[in-house]
Amino acid sequence: MSTRLDELLRAVAEGTLGPADARARLQHSLVEDLGFAQVDHLRAMTQGAPEVVFGEGKRPEQIVAICRALQRAGGQFLCTRLSPDAQQALRDAFPAVDINQTARTAYLAPDAPNSEAVDGRVLMVTAGTSDLPVAEEAAVCARAFGLTVERLNDAGVAGIHRILGGAPMLQNAAAIIVIAGMDGALPSVVGGMVSCPVIAVPTSVGYGAAFGGIAPLLAMLNSCAAGVVVVNIDAGFSAAAAAARIVRAAVRRGA
Amino acid sequence: MSTRLDELLRAVAEGTLGPADARARLQHSLVEDLGFAQVDHLRAMTQGAPEVVFGEGKRPEQIVAICRALQRAGGQFLCTRLSPDAQQALRDAFPAVDINQTARTAYLAPDAPNSEAVDGRVLMVTAGTSDLPVAEEAAVCARAFGLTVERLNDAGVAGIHRILGGAPMLQNAAAIIVIAGMDGALPSVVGGMVSCPVIAVPTSVGYGAAFGGIAPLLAMLNSCAAGVVVVNIDAGFSAAAAAARIVRAAVRRGA
Amino acid sequence: MSTRLDELLRAVAEGTLGPADARARLQHSLVEDLGFAQVDHLRAMTQGAPEVVFGEGKRPEQIVAICRALQRAGGQFLCTRLSPDAQQALRDAFPAVDINQTARTAYLAPDAPNSEAVDGRVLMVTAGTSDLPVAEEAAVCARAFGLTVERLNDAGVAGIHRILGGAPMLQNAAAIIVIAGMDGALPSVVGGMVSCPVIAVPTSVGYGAAFGGIAPLLAMLNSCAAGVVVVNIDAGFSAAAAAARIVRAAVRRGA
Amino acid sequence: MSTRLDELLRAVAEGTLGPADARARLQHSLVEDLGFAQVDHLRAMTQGAPEVVFGEGKRPEQIVAICRALQRAGGQFLCTRLSPDAQQALRDAFPAVDINQTARTAYLAPDAPNSEAVDGRVLMVTAGTSDLPVAEEAAVCARAFGLTVERLNDAGVAGIHRILGGAPMLQNAAAIIVIAGMDGALPSVVGGMVSCPVIAVPTSVGYGAAFGGIAPLLAMLNSCAAGVVVVNIDAGFSAAAAAARIVRAAVRRGA
Amino acid sequence: MSTRLDELLRAVAEGTLGPADARARLQHSLVEDLGFAQVDHLRAMTQGAPEVVFGEGKRPEQIVAICRALQRAGGQFLCTRLSPDAQQALRDAFPAVDINQTARTAYLAPDAPNSEAVDGRVLMVTAGTSDLPVAEEAAVCARAFGLTVERLNDAGVAGIHRILGGAPMLQNAAAIIVIAGMDGALPSVVGGMVSCPVIAVPTSVGYGAAFGGIAPLLAMLNSCAAGVVVVNIDAGFSAAAAAARIVRAAVRRGA
Amino acid sequence: MSTRLDELLRAVAEGTLGPADARARLQHSLVEDLGFAQVDHLRAMTQGAPEVVFGEGKRPEQIVAICRALQRAGGQFLCTRLSPDAQQALRDAFPAVDINQTARTAYLAPDAPNSEAVDGRVLMVTAGTSDLPVAEEAAVCARAFGLTVERLNDAGVAGIHRILGGAPMLQNAAAIIVIAGMDGALPSVVGGMVSCPVIAVPTSVGYGAAFGGIAPLLAMLNSCAAGVVVVNIDAGFSAAAAAARIVRAAVRRGA
Amino acid sequence: MSTRLDELLRAVAEGTLGPADARARLQHSLVEDLGFAQVDHLRAMTQGAPEVVFGEGKRPEQIVAICRALQRAGGQFLCTRLSPDAQQALRDAFPAVDINQTARTAYLAPDAPNSEAVDGRVLMVTAGTSDLPVAEEAAVCARAFGLTVERLNDAGVAGIHRILGGAPMLQNAAAIIVIAGMDGALPSVVGGMVSCPVIAVPTSVGYGAAFGGIAPLLAMLNSCAAGVVVVNIDAGFSAAAAAARIVRAAVRRGA
Amino acid sequence: MSTRLDELLRAVAEGTLGPADARARLQHSLVEDLGFAQVDHLRAMTQGAPEVVFGEGKRPEQIVAICRALQRAGGQFLCTRLSPDAQQALRDAFPAVDINQTARTAYLAPDAPNSEAVDGRVLMVTAGTSDLPVAEEAAVCARAFGLTVERLNDAGVAGIHRILGGAPMLQNAAAIIVIAGMDGALPSVVGGMVSCPVIAVPTSVGYGAAFGGIAPLLAMLNSCAAGVVVVNIDAGFSAAAAAARIVRAAVRRGA
Repeated sequence: MSTRLDELLRAVAEGTLGPADARARLQHSLVEDLGFAQVDHLRAMTQGAPEVVFGEGKRPEQIVAICRALQRAGGQFLCTRLSPDAQQALRDAFPAVDINQTARTAYLAPDAPNSEAVDGRVLMVTAGTSDLPVAEEAAVCARAFGLTVERLNDAGVAGIHRILGGAPMLQNAAAIIVIAGMDGALPSVVGGMVSCPVIAVPTSVGYGAAFGGIAPLLAMLNSCAAGVVVVNIDAGFSAAAAAARIVRAAVRRGA
Repeated sequence: MSTRLDELLRAVAEGTLGPADARARLQHSLVEDLGFAQVDHLRAMTQGAPEVVFGEGKRPEQIVAICRALQRAGGQFLCTRLSPDAQQALRDAFPAVDINQTARTAYLAPDAPNSEAVDGRVLMVTAGTSDLPVAEEAAVCARAFGLTVERLNDAGVAGIHRILGGAPMLQNAAAIIVIAGMDGALPSVVGGMVSCPVIAVPTSVGYGAAFGGIAPLLAMLNSCAAGVVVVNIDAGFSAAAAAARIVRAAVRRGA
Repeated sequence: MSTRLDELLRAVAEGTLGPADARARLQHSLVEDLGFAQVDHLRAMTQGAPEVVFGEGKRPEQIVAICRALQRAGGQFLCTRLSPDAQQALRDAFPAVDINQTARTAYLAPDAPNSEAVDGRVLMVTAGTSDLPVAEEAAVCARAFGLTVERLNDAGVAGIHRILGGAPMLQNAAAIIVIAGMDGALPSVVGGMVSCPVIAVPTSVGYGAAFGGIAPLLAMLNSCAAGVVVVNIDAGFSAAAAAARIVRAAVRRGA
Repeated sequence: MSTRLDELLRAVAEGTLGPADARARLQHSLVEDLGFAQVDHLRAMTQGAPEVVFGEGKRPEQIVAICRALQRAGGQFLCTRLSPDAQQALRDAFPAVDINQTARTAYLAPDAPNSEAVDGRVLMVTAGTSDLPVAEEAAVCARAFGLTVERLNDAGVAGIHRILGGAPMLQNAAAIIVIAGMDGALPSVVGGMVSCPVIAVPTSVGYGAAFGGIAPLLAMLNSCAAGVVVVNIDAGFSAAAAAARIVRAAVRRGA
Repeated sequence: MSTRLDELLRAVAEGTLGPADARARLQHSLVEDLGFAQVDHLRAMTQGAPEVVFGEGKRPEQIVAICRALQRAGGQFLCTRLSPDAQQALRDAFPAVDINQTARTAYLAPDAPNSEAVDGRVLMVTAGTSDLPVAEEAAVCARAFGLTVERLNDAGVAGIHRILGGAPMLQNAAAIIVIAGMDGALPSVVGGMVSCPVIAVPTSVGYGAAFGGIAPLLAMLNSCAAGVVVVNIDAGFSAAAAAARIVRAAVRRGA
Repeated sequence: MSTRLDELLRAVAEGTLGPADARARLQHSLVEDLGFAQVDHLRAMTQGAPEVVFGEGKRPEQIVAICRALQRAGGQFLCTRLSPDAQQALRDAFPAVDINQTARTAYLAPDAPNSEAVDGRVLMVTAGTSDLPVAEEAAVCARAFGLTVERLNDAGVAGIHRILGGAPMLQNAAAIIVIAGMDGALPSVVGGMVSCPVIAVPTSVGYGAAFGGIAPLLAMLNSCAAGVVVVNIDAGFSAAAAAARIVRAAVRRGA
Repeated sequence: MSTRLDELLRAVAEGTLGPADARARLQHSLVEDLGFAQVDHLRAMTQGAPEVVFGEGKRPEQIVAICRALQRAGGQFLCTRLSPDAQQALRDAFPAVDINQTARTAYLAPDAPNSEAVDGRVLMVTAGTSDLPVAEEAAVCARAFGLTVERLNDAGVAGIHRILGGAPMLQNAAAIIVIAGMDGALPSVVGGMVSCPVIAVPTSVGYGAAFGGIAPLLAMLNSCAAGVVVVNIDAGFSAAAAAARIVRAAVRRGA
Repeated sequence: MSTRLDELLRAVAEGTLGPADARARLQHSLVEDLGFAQVDHLRAMTQGAPEVVFGEGKRPEQIVAICRALQRAGGQFLCTRLSPDAQQALRDAFPAVDINQTARTAYLAPDAPNSEAVDGRVLMVTAGTSDLPVAEEAAVCARAFGLTVERLNDAGVAGIHRILGGAPMLQNAAAIIVIAGMDGALPSVVGGMVSCPVIAVPTSVGYGAAFGGIAPLLAMLNSCAAGVVVVNIDAGFSAAAAAARIVRAAVRRGA
């Protein structure tokens, strides 16, 4: 995608395209108005990641229309929170799409390998088996963003030897996403064991006074480990996007 | 205190006191009506612990009056949540009283050593230095209930080696009171390391989204360690009372 | 289960197994990694109770796989919060399993009678008929933990003579689990009548401003009876686990 | 006050005053506009109780001005939630006023005994000594409304024999106001013991998860005793006003 | 029912039944233990109203069993919050039962007209058509308690002339039940128009920030009309029970 | 509709109808009592907009009955929040009705064009595609109120160029309705770009800590752009009604 | 202020100032960077109202510095939420400033009468005397925005004749600001009586379950009167700003 | 600090210190037990940042004692949330300490320049002047962690040109900390403009329904800009610690 932007900017630099024309062409071609949606190709260009379609509250035919526009413009798309109906509609419309039922995602990879792929390993740690769907969403998105993903599952603090045993994996990660429901205690322990960035994701797993994820959300916001950051409840996609911001920033600096 | 009850019951058993008279004497002498308060000597008798006066919302002179009634009846009393004014009033009225400013408690021990003292060691673990006032209240109360108190301070999970280093103390306790604010994660780790009863006390330490203790309260109620029980926010006294119920029950069974 | 641990430790003591080898064997065999779950045989060993599988958010085939690992290692397992599908899957996989539909539990007892069974009687008191499913979960779990269970049902405080009439049962219990929704008042009355440990379980029974159990949860945390402890809403299993910690502690001390 | 209304209506009935004139005179004289307040003499007339001035958020001089208007019109007034400054200002302005510091009220009784006094006894039950200020506000207001007040203090359910011992007082009341903080359990027990109206008042007494009275408020709204009604937190005045509506209704029906 | 109690007490008074025997007979026959429920005939006796069975969370066969016990003892029963299945089960078991689908109630009237019927008229005012199911539950229960019910529907304050037009009905009521969702403003207007008891019932009608009835609940608790009392959200039964306490109290005093 | 009122008032002015008769006729004919509903023709007259029927909690046959009464009196009606069943019932009863499935509305336009139509353009801005159903409800209602509607969709602030690109549309609107879920940030940006009235509508779109619209509701109430006003969550109808109040007021002043 | 903008734009139109120069001059002179604050003269220009300084959380010397910049640029400023210290600092720095202690505001009027003054009358209605400080803030701000302010005080719905008596004032207003605490019921009644815009302001007046204004806020958001809009708790300034948007829009349309 | 660790590890590598001895020396010297606190030198070593002392809830003499231990071990310390008393105590004890009153911090820099200083620029953006104290805490901490800090103040979205004008600063940052109260909208706009990591800090600035920072906290958690991460309310320190994790990770990768 950024190839197209680069070409356009080169044309401007070389004088074959005037700045005003360039701007008009950009605005005209890059914000595509479908009536019910403005498909934002510009953001994808400037942020170096596929535009992500949030599936909740959209009808299957709307999702397909947005994805077609994205495919036309950049050859790829990523959808999250898809209902079974929306998954089927995308499967019908895009035979090559990769559907993950647990993660409720659909990803159409670009034809050419993404040149911006980065080699930073992101480790996803879950507290329990019930946190897996959120971890799966995070993993699908992170890979679509060009990151390398590692996993450490079922490492909740009630059996503290499980996370202690994972120390080598923790030490080698560029960033760690910790996914936990219930007491949300795991990010505090992980945060104290490593100096790399730690992104905490509360999940709505649990019952009673977990209140759909409020309990771990508050625990994570109040983590006694300094510098743990938090995203929304069940927000696997957001955690992956945050990790992409972090790891890409690191790569740029290292270049 | 229970000596008096035993004498009375023996008199009934020996026939020197009729059951109806015994009941009248009990009701007459053991529930003392001060007008603004019914001092409950009966509960102290049946539960084997000093009646505790909750100081908040009571005026100093009311507290002194209740304590006088308790002293007359049983020779001892324990007050919590005392304002500085109330502390001074008790100091003036009872020269022998033991005031703990950090814990905001006052304890008048009985003349004779409490024969019901139990040898179970209760361990109080705090996550941070700011949790100490609550731990202090718990310790004062636990000792007044006849328990032996041990302490392990500043063992929050962000430095996991601190609580791991305390494992020997944890293994030897009859019951453990874990006191933590912020993320309230410590009881989950402790609960997974021991099989003895674990009582979690959330504290109002912290800021922002700790919401005066709601964050650790919810975390503790949702602890991923099975069988961790919870008391009210900052409720050092309640935790001590719960520990007394547990340890005394154990002692009775062991007898 | 603890038999195996004992054998291993005896081998160490007798010099037929070196400590380093023993540790390796323990770590290797006792934390079994299923990929999506780390089955924690170690915790079961150190805490003397079957590892419990929380069924919510896990797929039936995952639950069956975890249970197989537990059965292989220790001969027993206990599952809670099972969907009807998960119940059926377990019934198919383990013909000997004991399913309780009201409690939504599955329990596979070990072949040999559990030598750690304790004789402490735990009394479960419910406020109303609607609290029975939670009580049932608590009872199934408590029995799996080796406890003896007694029941006193429908003893809510609006008919105060009902709980007063149960006084003899209350006096003889090693620990009492009080299960109530709505106003959550029953633990305060029970807590004032007995000196043994009292574990309060709020239920989501009720409507309107009961808010799915928040009303009784808050009432119980603020119980005016000293030393009442609280577990999560509808958390029959947690109450049973807490009772097991308490009664086993008592038994150990009595030994 | 109602004397004046009666005279006016008699004049209409006797033909010495036309209905239109009567209405104009009523509207003109009975809603007095002080600019910052419309003093509502009409309501006092139709509801048979002194207009009550809520002191919070009003400046002392405003309160004095409103009270002067009320005294001029009806010879009496009642103020609640008075700051010490406002209490002093009223004391200066009305030497005969009756100030109650605990209740934070000021009452100026009418010169002539209130002919509408009713003989129904209202019983005020408190759970603990800390609930007394609210009970005091309720008592002052109830007496100003012409009711007879009885008191039963410190009868919380953790010592259930205390409220059981008060059964005779409970049985003889025309209505019962139950005032409790913490777990708010007392109204449920009282409500089950009597068939008369029971008004529950949650208080902000307590700490931690009492949340300034939310815990007992929710408990009371969810009382398992049928037909217990609830007023706002700490609302002693509201409870007295409700009791007045109930007892006066009973008196009217009995006439 | 109270006939049976009267007979028994008369026998005691006449000496044909000793007090101890009377007590035993009462305790034996009046608290009936079904295992999963203690059917409380005593409360019905002392409170003069049919014992009410709350249907939520009980299985149809449990409800039928409880109703059979109530019918045997007193010839009548009243059930609320019945699922369609429970309604059918009661229809099958008791051909004479009166089912109200809107109110989700079942009432079996006693054979003989209830001698305790009272003539006080209770007015039920609803703010909108959507509040009718709650009003219907209140009406069914109130009639079962022997009250006379009047109705004033769809009188919300946004068309203030509608409630003003109902003034004559308001003035003649012994007590008024005001049922409103959304802004919960109607009880404040009604409370200012009458001096009789006003019971406010918030409903879960509305959307968005009505939060299932929290908005009108809070508005009603903070009503600017003095002495308005509140019951739980959607609690038509509770309002009827409160009205019965109030009207019966009035009748007793008038007798 | 207002034609009828005008005729009646003209008759009064011309002396052909006495004021008392006019009032009686108004009251008799304009508040129509259907038993379960008081259909309020008066409000429609005085406020110049069709009476709107809120469909939630009403049965289809009740909705049809109310609509018939409205049609008879004024020839038009508007319903919101209709279930599919209610939509079908209206389609059957009123063949000419206009059903909008996305908006869940039904509108029967009057036979004659509404003479009170106003030419103010109201712009509806949505943050994302998922906000469209609420925008659709607002648009249907606004048109029924005689307003001209323009639309700007999918202009959320994360792609700030999208709302900046809409500046010309923003500048020309008489009033702007901004509809957004999630972070509710869009009204603050819009409010800073224009000086016309801005009505913010939070939607329940989003997940996790959006809490069904609480997050954008709070953000909008705390908008840093001065003078942004807020309506209930998902309340497209309320926003349209507010816009009608604003634009009609402007029209009246301009006349 | 807008005079300066007009002059600049005229110069552009007349060709005496190039567009690029005009833009630079605008950006340079109109966004003034004080280091700790960017004083936004541009917004004042485009929105036709003085930039308002929110005093909370700013130190007195910061407030004075911002006000100096505003005075230099436009000759006027308006501050809200001023501490007594900040009020004094402004009094010292600007002898001509108009301080309102009740409203906690400071207003420096421009030398020349504001040519944009509009003649629309805005009516401010309060429910009780305690709501006056918020009304005062709204009135000061509204006048600074060029609006004409009328007042109707102490018209709460518990004495419904008070607001009914104000009907003539209500009918003549261009917009109405309704300010109420406690039950927040007044906007619903007012909203049903008029067709002009109604802005509801919840206040933090009240106690107990008013929760600092949450109760009236929710009631107002759920108003049963269509099209009532809401601003933040105690936000007199916001209501005035909203009224200015509405009335100015009306004036523009009328021109 | 890490110098000491390096020396120790080198000694091990060179064989002059056995591994077991090294471990003992580390454990002995690096976790210093002050009784009320375990000073954690180990964490500082492994995470490359000064151990930070959270001042709230600790007494001045406790803070001084902890700081002495930290100074002895590593030559530096950093304290946050200091009361004026604690600031004075530190000033007395450590003449060289750097106190920042606005930030409420104290920092004692190490004698030698910190060799781990990193050159990544962190940009701190505030929405308004009232957010400055939180930004100041973040800036002090970030500098202590070796980061370079830039500032962009008062750039709230209601004047969208202010943040747009800051685009060059935004584009050049290694990470951006966005600090905002009220509607919390700024991080969403910033997040959409840049691809680097964005850390959002809600502040308790604002009034009414800002609820002490809940409004911006929820808005930020629900940011429509992908990958924005959030820390606790007013948590300037936490944001700085998160930025340090991010920038240091980038530096390590770049090395």
